[in-house]
Amino acid sequence: MDNLKQRLCFALPLIRQAGTILRGAFSLRKEGVIYRKKTETDPVTDTDIELETFFRNEIFSKFPNETFIGEESASNLEKFDCESCWILDPIDGTANFVHGIPNVAISLAYSERGQVVLGIVYNPLQEELFTAIRGGGAFLEDNPIRVSDVNNWNEAIVCTEFGSDRSSVKCNMIVENLKSVLDEKIQGIRATGSAALNLCYVAAGRFDVYYEYGPHIWDIAAGSLIVEEAGGAVFHPTGSSLDLRSRGILATNQKFCKKLKFPPFWHF
Amino acid sequence: MDNLKQRLCFALPLIRQAGTILRGAFSLRKEGVIYRKKTETDPVTDTDIELETFFRNEIFSKFPNETFIGEESASNLEKFDCESCWILDPIDGTANFVHGIPNVAISLAYSERGQVVLGIVYNPLQEELFTAIRGGGAFLEDNPIRVSDVNNWNEAIVCTEFGSDRSSVKCNMIVENLKSVLDEKIQGIRATGSAALNLCYVAAGRFDVYYEYGPHIWDIAAGSLIVEEAGGAVFHPTGSSLDLRSRGILATNQKFCKKLKFPPFWHF
Repeated sequence: MDNLKQRLCFALPLIRQAGTILRGAFSLRKEGVIYRKKTETDPVTDTDIELETFFRNEIFSKFPNETFIGEESASNLEKFDCESCWILDPIDGTANFVHGIPNVAISLAYSERGQVVLGIVYNPLQEELFTAIRGGGAFLEDNPIRVSDVNNWNEAIVCTEFGSDRSSVKCNMIVENLKSVLDEKIQGIRATGSAALNLCYVAAGRFDVYYEYGPHIWDIAAGSLIVEEAGGAVFHPTGSSLDLRSRGILATNQKFCKKLKFPPFWHF
Repeated sequence: MDNLKQRLCFALPLIRQAGTILRGAFSLRKEGVIYRKKTETDPVTDTDIELETFFRNEIFSKFPNETFIGEESASNLEKFDCESCWILDPIDGTANFVHGIPNVAISLAYSERGQVVLGIVYNPLQEELFTAIRGGGAFLEDNPIRVSDVNNWNEAIVCTEFGSDRSSVKCNMIVENLKSVLDEKIQGIRATGSAALNLCYVAAGRFDVYYEYGPHIWDIAAGSLIVEEAGGAVFHPTGSSLDLRSRGILATNQKFCKKLKFPPFWHF
């Protein structure tokens, strides 16, 4: 735990410094250069790359023998199984960033032998910093946070995301899942555009359920630990145990997850 | 215009005062009493009622001969055609308020003979105040705002809401609309839980399109003027001209609305 606290103390000033860079770029975003990435609907900006380079350099300078997985460097995901691995999403919610929507987060996790043991998610635009060390609880700034105790569908706020894959197979799956959820007569659906923040909102008891097919390890590594440390449960949406590389996540509280009908939870 | 500026000067201190009440209640929300309303999925709180009473009393005290439509007092919507009418949603996004999600707004509009001429939308949790006077432009705090110039689907952030009606007819319509939108290969879908804020986000160029079947006049009266004054366009989602009492809205920028395929825009 002391080792992890030291790593948290190493990472927090970097996160705050990166937040300052992000805030500056956000206020100037109209002048920023936008690149297009893998697909027409998935943007990346200079700021994503600048922040990833910053973290990568700082981490390798301090821990030259450790490994690093970052969204923008298309790293080999097998590194996650190494003794020590850092996992970064420099801007989770890049589309929000580009559009001036303040739901944006820097997500940084540290793992040992494939288990995340430290997670930090920081929204510098709304000044919310979520942290967790495995076994040490979850925090919003210095305040402990807990998942909700809602376990009735008609009181539940369910969050999901629509990703960037617009193939008809994926779109059909998305709307079928959504129909299944609406048929449970839930209170509301939300979609923020940031998987990392969605997980933190579950951890803070704001959302009762979050599910998504599609997120990458860098989107959910930190947030999934924060949910667990806030007393919540994380799974693959089919109900199987969570593999952060499996491109799917379901997060909720312990009471509610017992009522969910999985496997399979929803269609896939 | 001077008359409307005077009305804005009358309303702004009330909005700020109401914001302080809302912030206080939000921080204590776990202890707040929650009532259930028309349907199982549509909550109302003491704070909604407290704020509506506050505004109603202040408005009638200053303007005893004018009319008032408020979400919580189930007013006769024909009042909207009167010479002078105030339209209030004391908390737009009550489900967010109950769940501790900071996307919440106080929405106040003033209309003359069925035309909104003054609109104020205030999110006291994120300290964002949007205002417009007809013919005078739209503002976020003191800064003029403009709608986006995005008119390609694959750069567009489209916002919608899922309401509280969970009948199978409504749910089918929601998912069919959503499927149509996804098939356009848009960049992203968002759902914030506040119609008033969604409109302001279109006005500020954060969202490129917002559509919803279901919102009431108190949800959209102020925001729709703010969109128009920010250079945007508002319609019924079928493409017909907007009647604020018709339970549907589509807001976008002038360039994009020319490309939208209506009527009918989407299935209904």
